Amino acid sequence: MVSKQHAVLEHAVLDIERSRTVRAFAAFAPAQALQPWTYELEALGTGEIDVAVTHCGVCHTDLHLIDNDLGVSEYPLVPGHEVIGTIAAVGNDVLGLAVGQRVGVGWQRGSCNQCEWCRKGLMHLCAGLRPTAIAGYGGFAQSLRVGHQFAIPIPESLDSVTAAPLLCAGISVYAPLIRFVRPCSRVGVIGIGGLGHLALQFARAMGAEVFAFSTSADKQEEARRLGAHTFIACTDPEQMRRVAGSLDLLLSTATVNLDWSTWLRTLRPNGTVCLVGVPPEPASLPVWPMMILGQLSFCGSVIGTPLQIEEMLRFAALHNVRTAVEVVPMEQVNHALEKVRRNQVRYRMVLATC
Amino acid sequence: MVSKQHAVLEHAVLDIERSRTVRAFAAFAPAQALQPWTYELEALGTGEIDVAVTHCGVCHTDLHLIDNDLGVSEYPLVPGHEVIGTIAAVGNDVLGLAVGQRVGVGWQRGSCNQCEWCRKGLMHLCAGLRPTAIAGYGGFAQSLRVGHQFAIPIPESLDSVTAAPLLCAGISVYAPLIRFVRPCSRVGVIGIGGLGHLALQFARAMGAEVFAFSTSADKQEEARRLGAHTFIACTDPEQMRRVAGSLDLLLSTATVNLDWSTWLRTLRPNGTVCLVGVPPEPASLPVWPMMILGQLSFCGSVIGTPLQIEEMLRFAALHNVRTAVEVVPMEQVNHALEKVRRNQVRYRMVLATC
Repeated sequence: MVSKQHAVLEHAVLDIERSRTVRAFAAFAPAQALQPWTYELEALGTGEIDVAVTHCGVCHTDLHLIDNDLGVSEYPLVPGHEVIGTIAAVGNDVLGLAVGQRVGVGWQRGSCNQCEWCRKGLMHLCAGLRPTAIAGYGGFAQSLRVGHQFAIPIPESLDSVTAAPLLCAGISVYAPLIRFVRPCSRVGVIGIGGLGHLALQFARAMGAEVFAFSTSADKQEEARRLGAHTFIACTDPEQMRRVAGSLDLLLSTATVNLDWSTWLRTLRPNGTVCLVGVPPEPASLPVWPMMILGQLSFCGSVIGTPLQIEEMLRFAALHNVRTAVEVVPMEQVNHALEKVRRNQVRYRMVLATC
Repeated sequence: MVSKQHAVLEHAVLDIERSRTVRAFAAFAPAQALQPWTYELEALGTGEIDVAVTHCGVCHTDLHLIDNDLGVSEYPLVPGHEVIGTIAAVGNDVLGLAVGQRVGVGWQRGSCNQCEWCRKGLMHLCAGLRPTAIAGYGGFAQSLRVGHQFAIPIPESLDSVTAAPLLCAGISVYAPLIRFVRPCSRVGVIGIGGLGHLALQFARAMGAEVFAFSTSADKQEEARRLGAHTFIACTDPEQMRRVAGSLDLLLSTATVNLDWSTWLRTLRPNGTVCLVGVPPEPASLPVWPMMILGQLSFCGSVIGTPLQIEEMLRFAALHNVRTAVEVVPMEQVNHALEKVRRNQVRYRMVLATC
C-alpha cells in the first residue's frame, strides 16, 4: 500500500516536472459547476515551492468563493485550501523543506513578511495575507504553488485523508481552544459539524470538561464518542437551563444568528464566547447586566499561525484526533460540493487526486 | 491642619462609641430629595467593623439607586459607596485592622466567603456580593458598617478627599487597565468624566500611549494635562479615521449607545473593547468581517477585588494619580446629587462630614 502510494506520488512529481501545465477544476461564474481547466505555471519564485496535490478537503468557504459571497472572487477561480501533497519543486531560499516531503497548506499561501504581525509570527493577522484560493489558484488541482512558510510538514502517523481538513477546519478551532482552554476548563461547542466534531476531540484531549450543543438530538451518541462529556439539545429550554452558569468557554461554529441572551447565560463569571463560525447578521449583546457584572468576553478567531498549525498536527497525531471524512476522486468535485452545500456531509469531504 | 483633622476624627469616633444612633441621609421614595434620618446600629458581628465616615464620593450609581433604576432599591435607602473614614470599632476575628486606622470602602461591603470566587480572592464576582448601599445603609452617613475584608487601608500620602472616588470610579477603570495594558500598549478612553479622567492618568502611569475620546472638544487641554498623548473629538469623522487600526484597548466609560462599527475600526488586530460604562441598550457588533478577521474582543468589567483596590491605592500614591473633586459638606448632599444629575461636575463630587 505504501509502495503503491509512493509510486503514484513519484509519478505526480515527475508529471509536474515534465510539464508546467496544471490540471485543475475551476469556477467561471458564481454558483456554477466547476469545470476541468488547465493553467500554466510561471517560473518558481524565491521562497516558493510547488506541491503535488494528493488530497484536498472541501470547506463551506469554497462555496462562498465560488458564489462570490465575499465579493472578492475573480474567475477562473480554483477553490481548495485544505491541501495535502508532496513537494515537487523548491525555489531559492526555501529553508527546511525538500522535494518529496509531505506537507499541508491551509487558507493562507503567503503574507507580506515585513509587517509587525509577520515579524511576530502572527502571519494570519497580516493585512497583506494571501489566501490560497484567492491570491492564486487553489488546491482543487494537480499542483499548488505556495510560500514555503505556509507549507507545514505532516507528522508520519497522520494519514493524508484525515489530515487534510485539519489545515482549515482543524486550525480554526484548535487556535482559539489553545488560547483559552486550560485543563479542567468547562468548554461548550456550538454546532457539531466539520469544525465542531474536531473541536470536541481537541477540547477533550486538552483536558477540558466538554459540552456539545446541537440542534440535532440524533448527534448525541456521536458527540459523546468524539469527546463530549455532556450533550445538550439546544432547542430544549430545560436542557439549556441545566447548564446555566457552567461554562468557561463557548466556541461557536454556528453560521446562523444566535440569541446571545440565552447563550451568555451558559457562561460562568469571566467566561468567553469565541466565534469561529460567521453568522449573517451583527450580534446583539446584552451588555447589562450580563456582560459587565459577569465580566464576560465576546470575541472572534480566524485560522491560526503556521507554527500553530504545526503544533496542532503534532497534537492531533499524539492524541489521535481524527477527521470524519468521506473521500471521493477529485473528478467528482461537483458532487462533493453539492453534498457540502446541502449539509449532507458528516463531517468533511476530501478530494483525492490519486 | 493635621492635628485639627485628628481632633475632629477623634470626636467622631467617640461620638459613635457613645451612641449607637447613626445620623444619615436617606431616600424614602424614587427620585425624591434625600432627608436627614437616623438608624440604630445593632451589635457588631464577627468580622465586622464600624467606620466613622469623613468623606464620601457621589457616583452616578447613587442616583440609579435613589431612583430605583435597577429595581433593587429598598427604602429608606442611604446611598454612598466611595467612603473614606476612620475605624471606630472592630468586631471579633478582624485581622490586620485597628481602631483609629484610616480605610476606604467601595461598592462592596461583603460577600459569601465560601464560593469559588471568594476563595480565589475574586469577591467582586461572588453571586452573594453585598453592595454597600443596598445590603445595608451606605456612606452618606456618620458611620458605615462593613466586613473587614472590604475596608482597605489608605496610604498615608493620599488625602481623603481625592482618595474617596478611587474606591468606585478609580477601581472600575484600574482593574480593566491592569488586566489588559502592558507598557507601550495603545489605549483609548471613551468619555472624559468621573471614570475617564482617572483612566487617562492610570493608563499614562502604566506606560501606555494614551488616546482620549470625547464629544466635548473643549476638554482637549485638560485631557492632555491628565495624560492623553492624543485627543480625538469623536464627533469628527476625519479625526476618527486618523486613528483607524491604532488601538490595543478601548475602554468605554460612556453611558450612551455607541455605533460599534465605527469604534471597532479604531482597534488593531487582537484589540479589545472593554465596557465599564453601561449603555441603555444591547450592543450591536459587526461580527464579520471585523471581529473575526481582526480577532477582536468585546468585554465588560465590574469594580475589582479588595486586593486590586489596595494595589490601585498604592499605584495612585506612587504616580500621583489624583481625582479632580469638588468638596461640599454632607448637609449639601441634595445640591451635590443635583449637580451630578445634570452632569455639571468636573469630575467628582465628594461629601465631607467634618
